[in-house]
Amino acid sequence: MRKVALTGDRPTGNLHLGHLAGSLRSRVEMQSSFDQYIMLADVQALTDYFENSRKVVDSILEVIADYLAVGLDPELSTIFIQSQIPELSELTMYYMNLVSLSRLERNPTVKAEIAQKKFGESVPAGFLCYPISQASDITAFKAEIVPVGEDQLPMIELSNEIVRRFNRIYHTNCLKESTAHLSKTTRLVGIDGKAKASKSLNNAIFLSDSAELVAQKVQTMYTDPGHIKISDPGNVEGNVVFAYLDAFHDNEEEISSLKKKYSQGGLGDTVLKSLLNDTLQKLLQPIREKRESLNKKDLLEICYVGTNKAKSVAQKTLYEVKSAIGINFFDKSLNRRN
Amino acid sequence: MRKVALTGDRPTGNLHLGHLAGSLRSRVEMQSSFDQYIMLADVQALTDYFENSRKVVDSILEVIADYLAVGLDPELSTIFIQSQIPELSELTMYYMNLVSLSRLERNPTVKAEIAQKKFGESVPAGFLCYPISQASDITAFKAEIVPVGEDQLPMIELSNEIVRRFNRIYHTNCLKESTAHLSKTTRLVGIDGKAKASKSLNNAIFLSDSAELVAQKVQTMYTDPGHIKISDPGNVEGNVVFAYLDAFHDNEEEISSLKKKYSQGGLGDTVLKSLLNDTLQKLLQPIREKRESLNKKDLLEICYVGTNKAKSVAQKTLYEVKSAIGINFFDKSLNRRN
Repeated sequence: MRKVALTGDRPTGNLHLGHLAGSLRSRVEMQSSFDQYIMLADVQALTDYFENSRKVVDSILEVIADYLAVGLDPELSTIFIQSQIPELSELTMYYMNLVSLSRLERNPTVKAEIAQKKFGESVPAGFLCYPISQASDITAFKAEIVPVGEDQLPMIELSNEIVRRFNRIYHTNCLKESTAHLSKTTRLVGIDGKAKASKSLNNAIFLSDSAELVAQKVQTMYTDPGHIKISDPGNVEGNVVFAYLDAFHDNEEEISSLKKKYSQGGLGDTVLKSLLNDTLQKLLQPIREKRESLNKKDLLEICYVGTNKAKSVAQKTLYEVKSAIGINFFDKSLNRRN
Repeated sequence: MRKVALTGDRPTGNLHLGHLAGSLRSRVEMQSSFDQYIMLADVQALTDYFENSRKVVDSILEVIADYLAVGLDPELSTIFIQSQIPELSELTMYYMNLVSLSRLERNPTVKAEIAQKKFGESVPAGFLCYPISQASDITAFKAEIVPVGEDQLPMIELSNEIVRRFNRIYHTNCLKESTAHLSKTTRLVGIDGKAKASKSLNNAIFLSDSAELVAQKVQTMYTDPGHIKISDPGNVEGNVVFAYLDAFHDNEEEISSLKKKYSQGGLGDTVLKSLLNDTLQKLLQPIREKRESLNKKDLLEICYVGTNKAKSVAQKTLYEVKSAIGINFFDKSLNRRN
């Protein structure tokens, strides 16, 4: 039997090359060997986008289009929308009793995010508790593998704590611990070279960008400000063009020899950027074409089928959880007769 | 149209005379003029009974038996179990984004309860957030009237804050503010005269107590320790027997003249206790008989019908809430096709 893997995205904008390098490519690989669930985490996104829900809502079909465009196959990967699975909210209610407030406040990732988001004194309860909701997502599907970045390790740790505590208190083994899969790829830097590529910093190349826009963005990419004449030795470290070539050019040796040449002097930014542009255009053209071939109705249908499949799995887990607590008073009849 | 009222109990044990005086009698009155929902708040009870869920589970049918025994009529009052209505959990998830952690920590009732329950450093997130879950209960049924004790006023206030914030952020008026109805009756003191009657202090007379047990408990009631000889003047203030006569004897004048006599001296505790015992036996006998006539299957069926009715109301509210946020992606189809 294939192991269950759970991944997903907070739908707060279209996906970009950072997502492709960071997670999408590995999901495409994983879908043939894992029973992969991919969640559009709209409920989680709303914990800090609650005043901008339009953004979340509008992003959902865009993100699904990105998924399919890069090669995720709904026959192999179950794509679903978090808000359409009430069982996840119910699990969260029961898990919230097993996690103390101080445990949540100690979570280093949440701590850093709270500081960054400038909630001030008004940290929404929903935001502080989102790691509990993540535990619901992970456990509902009995995910064994959760591909994450390093910053998400505390979430998996908390989820496993909840699993152990629940199983111990309610004398059951219905919940399963999961294992974090650290992604191999490092975070892709933004085209400005300042921080990781992100929508909010407006420094990313989106999978849906037109060929012209991609070319323009490559033109403005940060290289080495000290590299003025072609003959000057240039810095490879911190040079965004090389970072992107590393991530997306398929000939490592070629890039290695270009780096050497650039460091010694004699290789101009124009030539380099032209190579990167060719690389990205070749990469993005089929993605863009696939994306344009998708219509809203089909995307909704794909998502509907995936959500229904995910719902029936979550339903089963919730049933086990409520049985362990002892609160399936009408057995399944209430749901059945509806 | 009759106004909607919501009340309920945390099922953590059988109901006693304190409940009868404090809420049950007024619910029986209200059911003919209000559209009354009565919730068995098992999810809320689990926020501090999560390690003792058996107690909650076992109490549910007992409490429903108490309800019916005192005259609550399932044709007039909708009796339902909180945990069987997933919509309440979903509402809580969305409301949690609208309430800050510091707002929750300022709640005086929760603060006092946390101190009393000795959670120490481990206040469960679920416990701190239970007022948000209460707001879900109130708003799901669009309750206009919520009968409460004084200590519950901060909960209604928070619920109304959530209503206003939700309606403002999502440009809707689908949620309704509610009004607290302060109950007229004061809290019934325990038979030991030390604190209010409660199961945990073992100082209550239960609706299900046998006639013998009631008589025994009346015998041990705290009166006035200084009232030794019948001819001694006795204290009416703090005298539990008088508190119970005030609450349950139907002739106010008679009690008033007995109080006078007791204060002046010349009225013995034995006579008084005998009067109270007669009063309580007359009150409790039909309740006990009705209680014994109920079987588990019928109770479950009553509760099943009530829960289904409540569920369809909550479903409608959740649909409006999710529409306002914009996240009814499959319209109602996902639920319909299930």
